[in-house]
Amino acid sequence: MPTTLPAGEYRDRLAVVRDRLAASDADAAVYFGATSIEYLTGFHHIQTERPVCLAVSPDRVELTVPRLEVERVRGNPRIDAVHDYFDYPGGDPLETVAGVLDELGVDSVLADADGAPGAMGYDGPALSEFVDVETQSWVAEMREAKSDAEVALIRESARWANLAHRYLAAHTEPGAHPVTVSQRASMEGSRAMLDALGDEYAVRTRGDGPVHAGYISGEETALPHGHTPNERLSVGDVLITGATANVDGYYSELERTMFVGEAGDEDEHYFELMCEAQQLAIDAMGPGVPVSHVDQVVWDYFAEQGVTDLARHHVGHNIGMDGHEPPYVDRGWGAHAAGDDTEMAPDRDAVMEPGHVYTIEPGIYTADAGYRHSDTIAITEDGVDWLTYYPRDLEGNVIR
Amino acid sequence: MPTTLPAGEYRDRLAVVRDRLAASDADAAVYFGATSIEYLTGFHHIQTERPVCLAVSPDRVELTVPRLEVERVRGNPRIDAVHDYFDYPGGDPLETVAGVLDELGVDSVLADADGAPGAMGYDGPALSEFVDVETQSWVAEMREAKSDAEVALIRESARWANLAHRYLAAHTEPGAHPVTVSQRASMEGSRAMLDALGDEYAVRTRGDGPVHAGYISGEETALPHGHTPNERLSVGDVLITGATANVDGYYSELERTMFVGEAGDEDEHYFELMCEAQQLAIDAMGPGVPVSHVDQVVWDYFAEQGVTDLARHHVGHNIGMDGHEPPYVDRGWGAHAAGDDTEMAPDRDAVMEPGHVYTIEPGIYTADAGYRHSDTIAITEDGVDWLTYYPRDLEGNVIR
Repeated sequence: MPTTLPAGEYRDRLAVVRDRLAASDADAAVYFGATSIEYLTGFHHIQTERPVCLAVSPDRVELTVPRLEVERVRGNPRIDAVHDYFDYPGGDPLETVAGVLDELGVDSVLADADGAPGAMGYDGPALSEFVDVETQSWVAEMREAKSDAEVALIRESARWANLAHRYLAAHTEPGAHPVTVSQRASMEGSRAMLDALGDEYAVRTRGDGPVHAGYISGEETALPHGHTPNERLSVGDVLITGATANVDGYYSELERTMFVGEAGDEDEHYFELMCEAQQLAIDAMGPGVPVSHVDQVVWDYFAEQGVTDLARHHVGHNIGMDGHEPPYVDRGWGAHAAGDDTEMAPDRDAVMEPGHVYTIEPGIYTADAGYRHSDTIAITEDGVDWLTYYPRDLEGNVIR
Repeated sequence: MPTTLPAGEYRDRLAVVRDRLAASDADAAVYFGATSIEYLTGFHHIQTERPVCLAVSPDRVELTVPRLEVERVRGNPRIDAVHDYFDYPGGDPLETVAGVLDELGVDSVLADADGAPGAMGYDGPALSEFVDVETQSWVAEMREAKSDAEVALIRESARWANLAHRYLAAHTEPGAHPVTVSQRASMEGSRAMLDALGDEYAVRTRGDGPVHAGYISGEETALPHGHTPNERLSVGDVLITGATANVDGYYSELERTMFVGEAGDEDEHYFELMCEAQQLAIDAMGPGVPVSHVDQVVWDYFAEQGVTDLARHHVGHNIGMDGHEPPYVDRGWGAHAAGDDTEMAPDRDAVMEPGHVYTIEPGIYTADAGYRHSDTIAITEDGVDWLTYYPRDLEGNVIR
């Protein structure tokens, strides 16, 4: 299974941008977003107050970076030239970008934004002070349907998430510290991935590992975005876990509801109900299926079971280079695809397509505990493909 | 030393916002930024595609959240009412916000942005479709000078960073895996902090620990934002470390250049040069000193030593709730304070003030290795206060 993105992917992506550019009146496509720049070139960086700007013209790919990134760009075969300003704010990054565009003979651009994002206190001029700017979201759209190579990286991520999740379960016992079990599983999962992949591992971390596994526990599970408390595990605790691995910039998502000791009757009831909702959602998925339909199937089941008041969120979202990506599995989106003309929600991508990769994670939350699995499911030409595969049943999730 | 922010801080912050609001023609101040909302109310959340919006009127503080956050808001004594939409995009979050403002009798607002940020694919309407909006950056300005209570939290962060950095050094030896040493030091540092603080620990993490320590190693240190390679440590490797801890949402920054085995002559030369540059910078700091002056002192020293071509970035930045915050220690900022009228860089906050907390981290980068310490230094009424305190000298940073 490949663990780095093939070079041809970048070539194909740049070709799509150039096709769209050719169909427009603009001279270049411009990107300030770190993820978009990585998607098109493979150059990845931490988005800080220092702007980075990619310009794609019909025949050139040129990148403007702060001085500290120059050496990380050199040798990238997709980038024809790198330009730099020393630092922000003294270095006048947007002036530098304007100079690069001028040298390229560019008067008008289609950009992902009219200037750099206001990350970490950045506050600079609009690009439209220098050239004509219209905005586009081509890369955001391109990223929604993953190629086979991208799905393969997410599948590889799921493999290491699965291993780390095994470590998580193995180290869980009454009296254990949930933070420490989480960190230990992450450390051991990372070690295994690094040793197994060796030189095939795409180096991605800074003082941390590529694999993360962990959980929230006890009453905190009643909150979908609860925290890991500073208290030891006890028999009767519910856990909601999460595990993922960074494989050349791509992520999967594996979450399980687990029990420290035997599950009580109420725990078992809500666990089985949640599992059934998740299965119904996945059974409903496939190419051409509106995302709203999948969310509605779960809602209808919750209504039938009388638990809609215990639902806190929609069924899931896409995943890839970001942990959450559109389209979301949400009843509100499909309404627009079906012709509803309200203006609040975007109406594109309301239908599942081959290459979409969804987390499917309907949840039930009582006052005392939460119940949620999350699996990562790819849409194929004729159905779905489970990328995560940790046991979902009660027996596989009780820690004795 | 306190480990949570005193409640009075939130009261004081909201009072500042209300004073500014009273001096304006607007009916309410509005915030979409997660950090600003946390700063004013203590409610912290992960910024996702689901907008969260805080409205502060002369007599009410009301928060709009997705359904999944409702229970995390209840009981917050600063928040008078919580409103929710079910989820995005179906829930129409901005419509919900508009309804809340309407109920409050608000027609015009001063907001941190004209709508929610485009995080994780969010794409919604401008707030100005519903009410009159002018933008303000009051909280960003308020956050620059920290209160004594905030500095105390950053100091507490430095304590646990120091401990984790000790673990990092203790586990470093030829043949060790840099990723694993990093993760082990983070795990042990987190465990120590959690056990030492007990119920005084402000719960902040989800499946991870509050302390992070780690390093990049070998040739990757030649890159200021280099990575941790998947190769074992060897005698002769340079390390650039980093350590921090999350103390109720505040961070410090501790970085050291270390050597696996004895430092070579070139290593020692650049190490001492970097240390001297850092000392010169810190000696130059104090209330009323332009940030540009401190950056210039280092640049002049580098020029005198003939190493400006080995510099890759300015001297440092502020730190607090974010890892990087303005003002930055950059020569470009002071020029504007001194009357330079170029329009590229903002000219406010070009002078160090009591309560500013700076990372001071001049670096030198050869083709083979990098040399950079970072210390976290608070500006006081009459000088500076070192919040980080790990040994800086060569002897203290050689691993034998």
